[in-house]
Amino acid sequence: MTGTTTAYLASTGTALPGAPVDNGTLGKLLSVSEEWIDIFVGTRTRHFAWDLATGEVHQSLTDLCAEAGDLAIAGAGLDPSDIEFLVLATATPDTLLPTTAARVADRLGLNYLPAYQLQAGCSGAVQAIDLGRSLIAGGCGAGLVIGGDVTNRHLDLRRDLSRMPTEELVNYVLFGDGAGAAVLTAEPAGERVALRGVLNRFAGLGRPPGQIIDWYGITDRHTERQMISEDYKEIEESVPVMAVEILWDLLGLLDWGVGDLDFLLPPQLSTRMTQRIVEHLAVPGAREISCVSDTGNTGNALPFQQIERLLPELRVGQRALAIAVESSKWIKTGLALEKV
Amino acid sequence: MTGTTTAYLASTGTALPGAPVDNGTLGKLLSVSEEWIDIFVGTRTRHFAWDLATGEVHQSLTDLCAEAGDLAIAGAGLDPSDIEFLVLATATPDTLLPTTAARVADRLGLNYLPAYQLQAGCSGAVQAIDLGRSLIAGGCGAGLVIGGDVTNRHLDLRRDLSRMPTEELVNYVLFGDGAGAAVLTAEPAGERVALRGVLNRFAGLGRPPGQIIDWYGITDRHTERQMISEDYKEIEESVPVMAVEILWDLLGLLDWGVGDLDFLLPPQLSTRMTQRIVEHLAVPGAREISCVSDTGNTGNALPFQQIERLLPELRVGQRALAIAVESSKWIKTGLALEKV
Repeated sequence: MTGTTTAYLASTGTALPGAPVDNGTLGKLLSVSEEWIDIFVGTRTRHFAWDLATGEVHQSLTDLCAEAGDLAIAGAGLDPSDIEFLVLATATPDTLLPTTAARVADRLGLNYLPAYQLQAGCSGAVQAIDLGRSLIAGGCGAGLVIGGDVTNRHLDLRRDLSRMPTEELVNYVLFGDGAGAAVLTAEPAGERVALRGVLNRFAGLGRPPGQIIDWYGITDRHTERQMISEDYKEIEESVPVMAVEILWDLLGLLDWGVGDLDFLLPPQLSTRMTQRIVEHLAVPGAREISCVSDTGNTGNALPFQQIERLLPELRVGQRALAIAVESSKWIKTGLALEKV
Repeated sequence: MTGTTTAYLASTGTALPGAPVDNGTLGKLLSVSEEWIDIFVGTRTRHFAWDLATGEVHQSLTDLCAEAGDLAIAGAGLDPSDIEFLVLATATPDTLLPTTAARVADRLGLNYLPAYQLQAGCSGAVQAIDLGRSLIAGGCGAGLVIGGDVTNRHLDLRRDLSRMPTEELVNYVLFGDGAGAAVLTAEPAGERVALRGVLNRFAGLGRPPGQIIDWYGITDRHTERQMISEDYKEIEESVPVMAVEILWDLLGLLDWGVGDLDFLLPPQLSTRMTQRIVEHLAVPGAREISCVSDTGNTGNALPFQQIERLLPELRVGQRALAIAVESSKWIKTGLALEKV
């Protein structure tokens, strides 16, 4: 479950829909001030694959994931026929069945391969990479892992937002749409980034959920309940502590010291939370690679977006550590990367 | 992706909610004749974890999966602390986040382990076992795999069923609720059933979906669309053919002959479809192990229910082959089992 078997990350690909939506534009639609968004969340822009005025969906999760996956395969210099597995992680699948993984496989020309879809939140990218690493260790030469999320089913700017409680309103400024992907290989290829270690541990025994994202069926769609809810107080208290635990667990596993880290990819719940977490992590020698200020919290896509920003900076022999905490039911995940 | 690495199935556990609902009872509620159900589907009974009259949910997917998982752990003579991973497959999670896998881990007293949730349909049990086998191959000693589905969000007997088209009405007599689980181990234990081979392949390139199961968010819940739809003509034509392909792929992989099979666990879409598939498979020497007539199509739970019926019959040296076809986007899966 936690190991040092090496697989390699050969390339990434990401997809962000449309033009960035800034806090001035979003604040006007939400009837809140730009300053409120700045102070509470800090995130400056995010992207939506749907029309804020009409709700019309321009791109599905399948669209975004296929775009990111296609870029990752091309970036690795591979053909679809070289890909031996697909793992796709999301909290917000286009349909329950077929899976978005199956739809994306079809879109990318992949066939006769395992196509796993993981249901996950902020831990999903690492879970997908961990599963991909298991499949590489089992004999696969190359595979594609994807993470993505969309907000069109859960955010609705046509609702009466003036009567919405703050804890629900904050969802409208926290999240964004996007997808990210990576090609994993058994041998160094492309970007030649070794996966030195992966941490992937459910740690929620006896703890109430910190985040709930719900769905409706035909039977309950007229009942009123909050579809997204968070315990922000608990998240603010727990996530920085869990991030430190992940850091030290991964360093201990690899016998690395804090001074060995050149780059730090911290959790990206919001710009403000990331700032607080980075302070707690206290890894002064490592350069922070964040994207949440530009992308918003894109859930399963986000670590791929961070890694894509890392790659042009990472030189041979340099090390990076990525940390992601899923607050839904408290999942601790992280990746240790080293360019070879 | 397809291999012969050996892991072992040590035990199973299953959960079926409440009393069986027979065709007379269901026919009266649906305003269709018992004979119609017999002729089109053939399934005699199924179980529902919700009240047919009021829609009230008595047991969640978490409840059913925890019950099955608990039985499997006890059946293997293990404690929760022996379990090193959890894989749960479903098409119908209780919430999008937290995952049902995380909720079940909490319920079973599991902590500090990977808890994967696979989004899947009829292929999910085999996908979960395949993933479990990868984790065993990667060094885990024992893990728990679970599959389950519930119908309470998608079936509603309070709707005006007299105006429902036949192709939608058939969903009400096809499906049932349930969960199944198995403990996988690195060394023979408990029931000592070796996983000689697993087939797990997306095979839907360029093919339209055979089944769609949808969900609503807050934004689209007042739109009218069919939540479950199947292309029954395509399913009836394709599934028997794909089942034969899976049979021969697995036999070829293992260098087994048809005569080597003592038991056959065929796909369980309905009693009628199973009969047709078994005729196509033409493995006269193998005894059929089916449960769909009693349980209905329980999706991700079903292969576990078949394996549980197989275990008391399977003697040392005997071989069984399980086949599951997911028609959503055409996934071919199968298991080759041998008691050691």
